[in-house]
Amino acid sequence: MKNIYTLIVFFFLSHTLHAQDNNNIKLVIHGGAGTITRKNMTAEQEKAYRAVLDNALQKGYLVLKNGGTSVNAVQTAIMVLEDSPLFNAGKGAVFTHEGKNELDASIMDGKNLMAGAVAGVTTVKNPITAAIAVMEKSPHVMLTGAGADRFAKEQGLQIVDPSYFYTEARYKALLNAKKSESIELDHSDKAKKENLKKGNKTGHRESKSLIFSEGKKFGTVGCVALDKYGNLAAGTSTGGMTNKRYGRVGDAPIIGAGTYANNETCAVSATGHGEFFIRAAVAHDISALMEYKGLNLQDAANEVVMKKLIAMGGEGGVIALDKKGNISMPFNSEGMYRGYIRHDGQSVTMIYKDELKK
Amino acid sequence: MKNIYTLIVFFFLSHTLHAQDNNNIKLVIHGGAGTITRKNMTAEQEKAYRAVLDNALQKGYLVLKNGGTSVNAVQTAIMVLEDSPLFNAGKGAVFTHEGKNELDASIMDGKNLMAGAVAGVTTVKNPITAAIAVMEKSPHVMLTGAGADRFAKEQGLQIVDPSYFYTEARYKALLNAKKSESIELDHSDKAKKENLKKGNKTGHRESKSLIFSEGKKFGTVGCVALDKYGNLAAGTSTGGMTNKRYGRVGDAPIIGAGTYANNETCAVSATGHGEFFIRAAVAHDISALMEYKGLNLQDAANEVVMKKLIAMGGEGGVIALDKKGNISMPFNSEGMYRGYIRHDGQSVTMIYKDELKK
Repeated sequence: MKNIYTLIVFFFLSHTLHAQDNNNIKLVIHGGAGTITRKNMTAEQEKAYRAVLDNALQKGYLVLKNGGTSVNAVQTAIMVLEDSPLFNAGKGAVFTHEGKNELDASIMDGKNLMAGAVAGVTTVKNPITAAIAVMEKSPHVMLTGAGADRFAKEQGLQIVDPSYFYTEARYKALLNAKKSESIELDHSDKAKKENLKKGNKTGHRESKSLIFSEGKKFGTVGCVALDKYGNLAAGTSTGGMTNKRYGRVGDAPIIGAGTYANNETCAVSATGHGEFFIRAAVAHDISALMEYKGLNLQDAANEVVMKKLIAMGGEGGVIALDKKGNISMPFNSEGMYRGYIRHDGQSVTMIYKDELKK
Repeated sequence: MKNIYTLIVFFFLSHTLHAQDNNNIKLVIHGGAGTITRKNMTAEQEKAYRAVLDNALQKGYLVLKNGGTSVNAVQTAIMVLEDSPLFNAGKGAVFTHEGKNELDASIMDGKNLMAGAVAGVTTVKNPITAAIAVMEKSPHVMLTGAGADRFAKEQGLQIVDPSYFYTEARYKALLNAKKSESIELDHSDKAKKENLKKGNKTGHRESKSLIFSEGKKFGTVGCVALDKYGNLAAGTSTGGMTNKRYGRVGDAPIIGAGTYANNETCAVSATGHGEFFIRAAVAHDISALMEYKGLNLQDAANEVVMKKLIAMGGEGGVIALDKKGNISMPFNSEGMYRGYIRHDGQSVTMIYKDELKK
């Protein structure tokens, strides 16, 4: 009789705990921030972007719901975004000055502060998988260039010919950028406007591509997740900057800048003008404001994105998630592709500034 | 008469201010942390190391004394250490698995949070000059690989044939590391001890080199400085890890990990097992503890190096300097090449654990 009681209590407790855990799961994604406005985007483009965002949310959520880890969920959601040509990560990555696609990605596990990153890979289909392999299968945190490609291949990851990453819209964006040389040589407002105009032309009229070729969009994709075990994770993946030179690396593969996760505080993935995000150590700074100054997630994220970065002139945004499942998605640019999915599977996608968190 | 008084007051004030400013200048350096003990090192080696450390201190100090900026002083001091074969940076850098020398460096200016870094350069004689050029002459923060070398060349920096970085002692250390493959394939204590034994043999008996070939030394050089204008700067330069593969990058070129400077808090340069220093965002964390938790420099640096890093298993140390000229140089390894020079030109060099700050 006593045994039966024990059994009943056990099943009751385990069911309750399980339900509680799954009540807490959450996943948040972004697909880049920048000059993304209603008037710049067609209804067709908007629909296409929202569909991919929602697919990423649903696929990542399924991992969490089935008891997968936050790292697994981050990988799954980011792979959806990498595989879509719409976002500047994986397929659809922007082109370097030399006409190549050099990809960066990073991951951090909030449970144990383990991390992995790759910079400048050219043959890994899903750079986020390479970052995770660095974290899980190597004693290192950051691998770069051809060496990182070699490591990914040795780990049995999916390798593709560099031509896999080609998209017409991104290549045209490179040609336009080269024409104006605005990104590296001229930072005046006039150049920005010209570039924007050209970018829009390419996206809307010339190629009629679904890919939204913003003149100034800091395309990067990212995901933060909280699993039923209470563990946070953050991941980021990008093709970097159109027309980038000299092996330029932004904040996406930099732990503490574009990506940071710590169960004690929060998980953060950033998107924006990477140079400013590195100098401001954005992702770690949000965590530090919570840990040392006692700010809540929203205040910490706003302090960095809406005050510090604006004061420095750094455009972009972050997605952030704390251990209680609170979400913050501040950005100081005109728009940011973003979305979240709740424990019950209800998802929300947003693009513009006027869409508030529901 | 009134004008003369004004003039006298003006000269008096300007002289006083000038004197006060020069009373505050300070420069601190490190040359790497690791298994550096009295019994492992000959008197001749110790003398050689102290001589280079002191030369770096004196040269950096001269810049500050003559009204140069903290960035200039950091560059000057680090160049002395890079040019010496004794330290794992510039000439004397360790070898990669493929038998190459791939160098990383970074700089940060505490005045405006500007920063620059290069990773994996192979032809720049003084990588710290490339990091500074990235900061001052490009819109970027981090350049990598062949692109970074090309940028350095275009900027007119001194370019050398990769063979310039060859030293016999470091090459032998690679051969020993490859024999045991301890760094990448075996992290057991036994392997560490074997590697240490072999390393010592190479350094002391076989080649009789002045270069101290420690089995486990995280050689990196760094400098933090405070100039008469009250501006802090931090810089770090390294050859990375012996036998490193896959384009591995440590904390040295990562802003927020190996290097950080902010006039509001402190300047930090780190040396140690880079993977842990990236995961712990060491340099930015020390700054954040001061800014958000109100810790003083010593407590903040100790919290990170002597508590957080030890808890994670991360070996190494930092040099740190605040805007008042306070110094902190904690390390959790057996030794750390380090030193500082005061406003009056009095310098102190230290190597072992039992040498306390005078």
